[in-house]
Amino acid sequence: MRIPPLRVLALVITLAACASPASIELRDMGSFHVGGREAVISGKPNGAYQVEQMYVQYFLPARERGTVPLLLWHGGGLTGVSYETTPDGREGWLNYFVKKGWATFNSDAVERGRAGWAPYPDIFPGEPIFLTKADPFERFRIGQGRGSYNRDVALMKPLPGTQFPFEAYENFTRQLVPRWTTTDAPTIAAYALLVDRICPCVIVFHSQAGQFAFKVAQARPDKVKALVAVEPGGGGDPAQAAALKGIPILALFGDHIERDARWPAIRANVVKFLESVREVGGRAEVRDLPKAGIRGNSHMMMMDKNSLEIAGVIQTWLEREGLWR
Amino acid sequence: MRIPPLRVLALVITLAACASPASIELRDMGSFHVGGREAVISGKPNGAYQVEQMYVQYFLPARERGTVPLLLWHGGGLTGVSYETTPDGREGWLNYFVKKGWATFNSDAVERGRAGWAPYPDIFPGEPIFLTKADPFERFRIGQGRGSYNRDVALMKPLPGTQFPFEAYENFTRQLVPRWTTTDAPTIAAYALLVDRICPCVIVFHSQAGQFAFKVAQARPDKVKALVAVEPGGGGDPAQAAALKGIPILALFGDHIERDARWPAIRANVVKFLESVREVGGRAEVRDLPKAGIRGNSHMMMMDKNSLEIAGVIQTWLEREGLWR
Repeated sequence: MRIPPLRVLALVITLAACASPASIELRDMGSFHVGGREAVISGKPNGAYQVEQMYVQYFLPARERGTVPLLLWHGGGLTGVSYETTPDGREGWLNYFVKKGWATFNSDAVERGRAGWAPYPDIFPGEPIFLTKADPFERFRIGQGRGSYNRDVALMKPLPGTQFPFEAYENFTRQLVPRWTTTDAPTIAAYALLVDRICPCVIVFHSQAGQFAFKVAQARPDKVKALVAVEPGGGGDPAQAAALKGIPILALFGDHIERDARWPAIRANVVKFLESVREVGGRAEVRDLPKAGIRGNSHMMMMDKNSLEIAGVIQTWLEREGLWR
Repeated sequence: MRIPPLRVLALVITLAACASPASIELRDMGSFHVGGREAVISGKPNGAYQVEQMYVQYFLPARERGTVPLLLWHGGGLTGVSYETTPDGREGWLNYFVKKGWATFNSDAVERGRAGWAPYPDIFPGEPIFLTKADPFERFRIGQGRGSYNRDVALMKPLPGTQFPFEAYENFTRQLVPRWTTTDAPTIAAYALLVDRICPCVIVFHSQAGQFAFKVAQARPDKVKALVAVEPGGGGDPAQAAALKGIPILALFGDHIERDARWPAIRANVVKFLESVREVGGRAEVRDLPKAGIRGNSHMMMMDKNSLEIAGVIQTWLEREGLWR
């Protein structure tokens, strides 16, 4: 077919005037808080305080390709920053999924980041936990366990072939925030309200959020169209496994699990929960990345050097589930 | 001039295929932390902790029209959320300035939001301050001073003609976060590092950040091309007023100042500081919005119902200063 010259001109003008493929075109972006309650507290000073809400930031692509929104839930001691720029300055999963055309909702759970936090022990029982700089290096399968962290990169003992950008580990420690271990109930309540507000949706969740996302999906099974568990720290309520029967589940685990002190048990616990979902007719896939030839991933795989390859694994699975067009 | 039909087609295709004027087209977005230090602390548990960093989220428009980036600095007990969606769900100043083509950097200062916070009294001396729900209503010139807040909107006593969307005040309280009064030095240090990294720039700052922005500009006068003080809570160092000689300054104040218990003194203090800048040859304008016919603005004018009109006042001033093309 011969294309008339003016049609070619039209095409050239169109391409020149529009976003490059690398750019992000949004029909809107913004944020909101959801949930929480009023609590009357004495002495801080006396009065009614707003507590236990959570924060959500959203990015709505001009050309939406996900059939439902995609929610990003972070892990313990962390915030939605997990999914933004990586510690070594590369694009995070937030940009990846927005560019793929997902309406993406990235949150800070109750007590974290822009959610704010409440007086303790009045509202949050107990003391907050602060992580040392060494802690995630040694527990998140970046380094070779206890004693492997050193501020001097040359003296660090990273796991062989790790994909974590450990040269930028110091920068990663800047995004650690305090956490409590006593706030599961209000956190789950706020996540459930978020699901009520935004979903039907896909939830991509990391680490501690495993305990939240599986339970919220069990409470709102009609609202959740897929669950992507990124090294979840735990499962849902085994007695309610049947509630997840209609929700496709993908659980991803990285490398070096077997040589870690804690991760074999954490993984086994999740695998057992997902088996209980399969036993009642559900579809729950456990994908160990090394078995698929993807090696070296840490617990923070959304920051690893091959983070976009892992995002691609999630994207491909969501496409096969018919959730992207 | 007769336009050939295929040229018309080209134009139609171009307009249809591109972002609508209402959309946001970014060449990049992301975040980073800046500053802070390592502190060795005992008993939480013992170890080295990362403390006193700050968080910055950036949005870089595909078509940049600001001649320099624009930084948004929030007030006390608040975070960068101040500039996002308003409590009643309208677009905030962040979207406004990004759509105008400014490379915009919205931050959470040391101790706030996604910056995280450090053990106290070990690192942050003293106790954090939590704001009651009533506090900002009564102090930020939304209500008629002490006793004017009520959870029941029908029983609230807002200032007559207030522009604050007080029907959504409960939602506003969800974005309040704890603060300390002992962290000015690390906050100024982190802001100065941000300026070193991003600027030359324009800084738009609110309330408590008045104390920070004027001092940081005095320390980095070559890096700051304009200062927009939105109801600043204070000025810089009067002894160093001359450092601001070359930086155009616009200070905005809202309505009902004269009838408030605290605001006449706060405003007078800032006006005095800016007079000292003018005395050494600087250009510092104090603009009282009611005198310009813009009535009803509260201390939270970036959330007021006429918030985009106020953003327009800032934009027009920046254009006249030659900082936008």
